[in-house]
Amino acid sequence: MTTSHSDGLSRRLVLGALAAMPALPGLLGATAAEAQTEAPLPSWNDGPAKRAILDFVRDTTDPSSKEFVPPEERIAEFDQDGTLWVEHPVYTQIVYCLDHVGDLVKARPELKNRQPFKTVLSGDREAIAKLSMRDFFEIVLGTQSGMDVETFREDVRKWLTGAKHPRWDRLYTDLVYQPMIEVLNFMRANGYRTFIATGGSGGFVGEYSEKVYGIPPQQVAGTEQAFKYGYDKDHRPILTREPKLVLDNLEAGKIQNFWMIYQRRPYAAFGNSSSDDQQMLEYVKAGSGARLSVAVLHDDAKREYAYGPAQGLPNTSVGTFSQEMYDIAKKQGWIVVSMRDDWKRIFAFEQA
Amino acid sequence: MTTSHSDGLSRRLVLGALAAMPALPGLLGATAAEAQTEAPLPSWNDGPAKRAILDFVRDTTDPSSKEFVPPEERIAEFDQDGTLWVEHPVYTQIVYCLDHVGDLVKARPELKNRQPFKTVLSGDREAIAKLSMRDFFEIVLGTQSGMDVETFREDVRKWLTGAKHPRWDRLYTDLVYQPMIEVLNFMRANGYRTFIATGGSGGFVGEYSEKVYGIPPQQVAGTEQAFKYGYDKDHRPILTREPKLVLDNLEAGKIQNFWMIYQRRPYAAFGNSSSDDQQMLEYVKAGSGARLSVAVLHDDAKREYAYGPAQGLPNTSVGTFSQEMYDIAKKQGWIVVSMRDDWKRIFAFEQA
Repeated sequence: MTTSHSDGLSRRLVLGALAAMPALPGLLGATAAEAQTEAPLPSWNDGPAKRAILDFVRDTTDPSSKEFVPPEERIAEFDQDGTLWVEHPVYTQIVYCLDHVGDLVKARPELKNRQPFKTVLSGDREAIAKLSMRDFFEIVLGTQSGMDVETFREDVRKWLTGAKHPRWDRLYTDLVYQPMIEVLNFMRANGYRTFIATGGSGGFVGEYSEKVYGIPPQQVAGTEQAFKYGYDKDHRPILTREPKLVLDNLEAGKIQNFWMIYQRRPYAAFGNSSSDDQQMLEYVKAGSGARLSVAVLHDDAKREYAYGPAQGLPNTSVGTFSQEMYDIAKKQGWIVVSMRDDWKRIFAFEQA
Repeated sequence: MTTSHSDGLSRRLVLGALAAMPALPGLLGATAAEAQTEAPLPSWNDGPAKRAILDFVRDTTDPSSKEFVPPEERIAEFDQDGTLWVEHPVYTQIVYCLDHVGDLVKARPELKNRQPFKTVLSGDREAIAKLSMRDFFEIVLGTQSGMDVETFREDVRKWLTGAKHPRWDRLYTDLVYQPMIEVLNFMRANGYRTFIATGGSGGFVGEYSEKVYGIPPQQVAGTEQAFKYGYDKDHRPILTREPKLVLDNLEAGKIQNFWMIYQRRPYAAFGNSSSDDQQMLEYVKAGSGARLSVAVLHDDAKREYAYGPAQGLPNTSVGTFSQEMYDIAKKQGWIVVSMRDDWKRIFAFEQA
């Protein structure tokens, strides 16, 4: 017991003082300009979703509230694909991997006639979009294995500066949802630590998460491959990515892995997919005190996409929001965000 | 790319301003009093170890230095047992588990005659001290499984307020090394994010890490069991600890698991054990630019303990510092800390 500690009051004073300072992303993440010069969540239309988020943050940070949560327990978790950025027509990390399948089969020609690589090499976009999550991860393990972890970092960084989404002809990192960026900043400005729990690889998402979301790579929990310790030709130690899953967020492991790595039940969780987010949202909402579970419904074909059974549309492998999850959300008191109705704008590059 | 960002200069200004404020543990962790009113590392004797730590921090944080490291890359990793607090005669978490073996065999009497439980129940301290790391983890999995993760948290917290180390008759959380607390604070005051990589369970260490070390549970990577999602009798979702290892830091997995979870090679690492720290220290030291690897040698039988082959003493299951690791340390330029010579005092409760 040798470190000294501020009490709740001095913590709040410090947070207040920080709000009057220049931005400190990655540490507290809030930009002072946002915190001070405009009302929170400006890209959100007034409505029950926006009100629920504002009320939750007020109730859990006001020391006189019976639902006050001490700063060290303020944890908020965010799914990435379909919750923080566009996931259609196919997850961005899968696009990265598809771009590397050519190199992979050059190195290992025996894969040419093996599924799912054969489908990818056919170039048949419809068939590719119909591959299962397990097929996708087969491609991830194939294309992301065998190299040193630092070589992988460099390759991801380079790819991100060039690859563009076909619909908008913009970098993938431009296709983040502005209303959600405002939620991240608003929660951090109120003492929340923000985390990503993703079906993607932490080593992929971590290359842009701090710059794009203000979330450092250490706060990104992904589906993770094994790493092997060894030595390169100059006898320097290296870590090599291996084609073996260790932590699996693809289906229902997200909350288990989140707890394993970060040791707490979040107070707030945001997701959109029945396969990997549903248990997380249920578990968070079931905690004691005020808890916020938010599910993003993709119902805006004009400005983004509309998909999932809750939209009366058939499921694809990419993102699901089943009618069952919709019914559970209503029954358990989650907030369902309608992209069409709740969001004034979707991307920062749109006219407000 | 929608969040705004401060440049290096305004980051430094903010860090400077923070240094003039009350303590903000868990966010930046430095206490202003320490940063301003006394020279760093007051419990260290002047000597090559202290100088190496001070030089490393100066070189990696001075913007005019060719070894400058940007704040978002400043990661420092610390082993816990034997590096941050006492590990002899047996790891504290194992003491916790031994205290629970009675309850375990009451619930599962068939374990009474099975090893390693039989040895534990014999009460033979010498035999218990000779159990292997795998035996210890068998006991961990036995005693820490089957309960809800939040029930486990509560039980650990309660135990920590009562259990005492027999030699000093003090709470285990008082037996942290004051010189290392000063290193943690000093590094955080200089923009480093501090992490623990431990052979213990994150869910155990995370219950006191923020209070004792200023390291939040989200920055503790441990040896981790599987968790199972299910429902209690009131149909509320719970996570249950399962008797299955998922992440194994006991032997050589520490740096692999650290990278998997936190996505970066640390710039500094502190450890003491050949079994689980050696690869971590080697890997950190082999990185580009200035890197600091520090190994703590337990050579002070009077004030703490002396053990390990580098001391000419036989190995036990608890903590090792092999002659091989000692030779590698010297060859690769790690810093070897002599507790006897480098530390003015070991515990905060000692007279300075």
